[in-house]
Amino acid sequence: MSTIQNDTFLRAALCQATPYTPVWLMRQAGRYLPEYKSTRARAGSFMGLATSPAYATEVTLQPLARYPLDAAILFSDILTVPDAMGLGLSFTPGEGPRFAHPLRSEEDVLRLAPPDLNKLRYVFDAVSEIRRALVQDTVQRVPLIGFAGSPWTLACYMVEGGKSEDFRTVKTMLYTRPDLMHHILRTNADAVAAYLNAQIDAGAQAVMIFDTWGGTLANGIYQQFSLTYMHKILGQLQREKEGRRVPAIIFTKGGGNWLEAMMATDASRRPDAIGLDWTVDLATARQRTGGVCALQGNLDPVALFSPPNIIRAQVRDVLDTYTAGNPTKGADGHIFNLGHGISQFTPTEHVTALVDEVHNYSRKLRKTNDQQ
Amino acid sequence: MSTIQNDTFLRAALCQATPYTPVWLMRQAGRYLPEYKSTRARAGSFMGLATSPAYATEVTLQPLARYPLDAAILFSDILTVPDAMGLGLSFTPGEGPRFAHPLRSEEDVLRLAPPDLNKLRYVFDAVSEIRRALVQDTVQRVPLIGFAGSPWTLACYMVEGGKSEDFRTVKTMLYTRPDLMHHILRTNADAVAAYLNAQIDAGAQAVMIFDTWGGTLANGIYQQFSLTYMHKILGQLQREKEGRRVPAIIFTKGGGNWLEAMMATDASRRPDAIGLDWTVDLATARQRTGGVCALQGNLDPVALFSPPNIIRAQVRDVLDTYTAGNPTKGADGHIFNLGHGISQFTPTEHVTALVDEVHNYSRKLRKTNDQQ
Repeated sequence: MSTIQNDTFLRAALCQATPYTPVWLMRQAGRYLPEYKSTRARAGSFMGLATSPAYATEVTLQPLARYPLDAAILFSDILTVPDAMGLGLSFTPGEGPRFAHPLRSEEDVLRLAPPDLNKLRYVFDAVSEIRRALVQDTVQRVPLIGFAGSPWTLACYMVEGGKSEDFRTVKTMLYTRPDLMHHILRTNADAVAAYLNAQIDAGAQAVMIFDTWGGTLANGIYQQFSLTYMHKILGQLQREKEGRRVPAIIFTKGGGNWLEAMMATDASRRPDAIGLDWTVDLATARQRTGGVCALQGNLDPVALFSPPNIIRAQVRDVLDTYTAGNPTKGADGHIFNLGHGISQFTPTEHVTALVDEVHNYSRKLRKTNDQQ
Repeated sequence: MSTIQNDTFLRAALCQATPYTPVWLMRQAGRYLPEYKSTRARAGSFMGLATSPAYATEVTLQPLARYPLDAAILFSDILTVPDAMGLGLSFTPGEGPRFAHPLRSEEDVLRLAPPDLNKLRYVFDAVSEIRRALVQDTVQRVPLIGFAGSPWTLACYMVEGGKSEDFRTVKTMLYTRPDLMHHILRTNADAVAAYLNAQIDAGAQAVMIFDTWGGTLANGIYQQFSLTYMHKILGQLQREKEGRRVPAIIFTKGGGNWLEAMMATDASRRPDAIGLDWTVDLATARQRTGGVCALQGNLDPVALFSPPNIIRAQVRDVLDTYTAGNPTKGADGHIFNLGHGISQFTPTEHVTALVDEVHNYSRKLRKTNDQQ
């Protein structure tokens, strides 16, 4: 087992004790950083950036150079998987992702198959290169998180062909032809499981499944068409590698109603940690999950537009709320994060205040707890 | 007390027994109806339509001519109130609402005052005219619902100046200058209370507060900056008129986590009914609210794009789920609705299937319950 200088993120994801609360930010390698924009300009396009292991490594490490973050996350995009399935991904500036061949007919759907993983080689190469780049003086600084989109969230883009306001096309298929939708979701689940296992083989030390659009589904439908397939993936993942547990995190934006279901009755399909958006009360979420899963979140990304002293107060509030959910156990089992990706307009120095306050205040919380 | 031919909506909103579950649809008078589009074309503009009591009456009654809906809702817009406060509302085709004078500086905010209600006379005139038009053979067919936007939702538009993806400007003001935000919200709450009371005076027999953007707020912030002000309005409303209770409904889209708080500890500020979006499990929502408030909702509007037989199955599922929350009390205390406004692309004949299935199946549910 290789040593990791700072393994607080991995320990917190397994509800183990840590000296402070680890923090990383969704989309931490991104457009709010001027150095990211400069690399992106050199790469020529978003896909030029994402498909180059060298560039992906460079931007993955950029936020770690600025801030003492407790984890790195692979720079990539959830849509690389359907792209490798032949749907033809492109990014139009200002319009977001587009698929040249969205799934609209029965024929389109039944032709769908998990991708040849060789087409995603650039992702696994990036993972290996990032792992090497994270080593400083023979020791890895922080762990590396791999990720993928949830089967349902991928299906939204694959059927709609891009972004959507109401998900009319994909939901109409779901309601009208559930058989076709289940075929897509099964295929996506197998693809994502293989994809994440290959990331783990290449060196990812934790994985996260982003279910950005699960929260647009009706109660009952979410469980059948999104959660089941995330659980299916979790059941297929290698959860142990290099002598360490590989924590798996699931995150459904707008999924606060469904925490109990997310925990899964079958332990082999249980996530180690659950990501939460800012609408969720961390204290009751902690009570509802009863220490079975760690929790990740949940500051409103827009809070980062406030001045630093207010950001610090909001950070303390999140940490206090989590702690209030189980005062005896204190602040352990919590990974600090935003409730959604960081906005491209965030002032960089505001992130400094956030990370600093998470570390300092969460150390204080643990001292207070020890003294009681 | 004047007679209402069909008062099932009013009775259900007060958790009283009804022979079937009443149904109405948010935005039922709207663009999915060809007859609406034709009136809208004659009116020249959205504001031309909304500010004419004759046109507003015409479009309010259009869905009732097509479908046996159990309530009429005033045709208007939530932004009439900030418009009357001098913010200069306009609607650009395809872009939605715009305010010429958004609240950005301290000066803008401190200048804000509740509107002269005479500027909203056209709304109250529309309410009176609709009440008269609802009378057939000396008897009112169904009750008339008045409405307004929540103080927070109005503030979103007033500060952003229009639609927003992330509510960055208004949330930054909230975090950075909570004093200014509270000033806006207090002013809006007073304005909305006076506005709804004037609608009740003019003939509205129930009122609903639409909190479309409350669900974008963080837990803790929602309670302080949105819910408190809706409660404040409820405390100021006349809840009795023409010898009848005037039920008040509040609806926060994405507010499923906060049902307990919505019920309010102070009964004078308690809503009679709570609107729910489709992500909420109606069975547990009913248990959580314990029969203290009626529930309104919660079919996904996009389910209306399915063929009629599937719409009918989804309708039965909503009715069954509500009933499962309290099998002894059965289906009473539920107002069927969508979880958000009906889409402009909805096929009109699909609404026929929805209304028909709500009425038929909910009658059957009550018979089954009586026989047990």
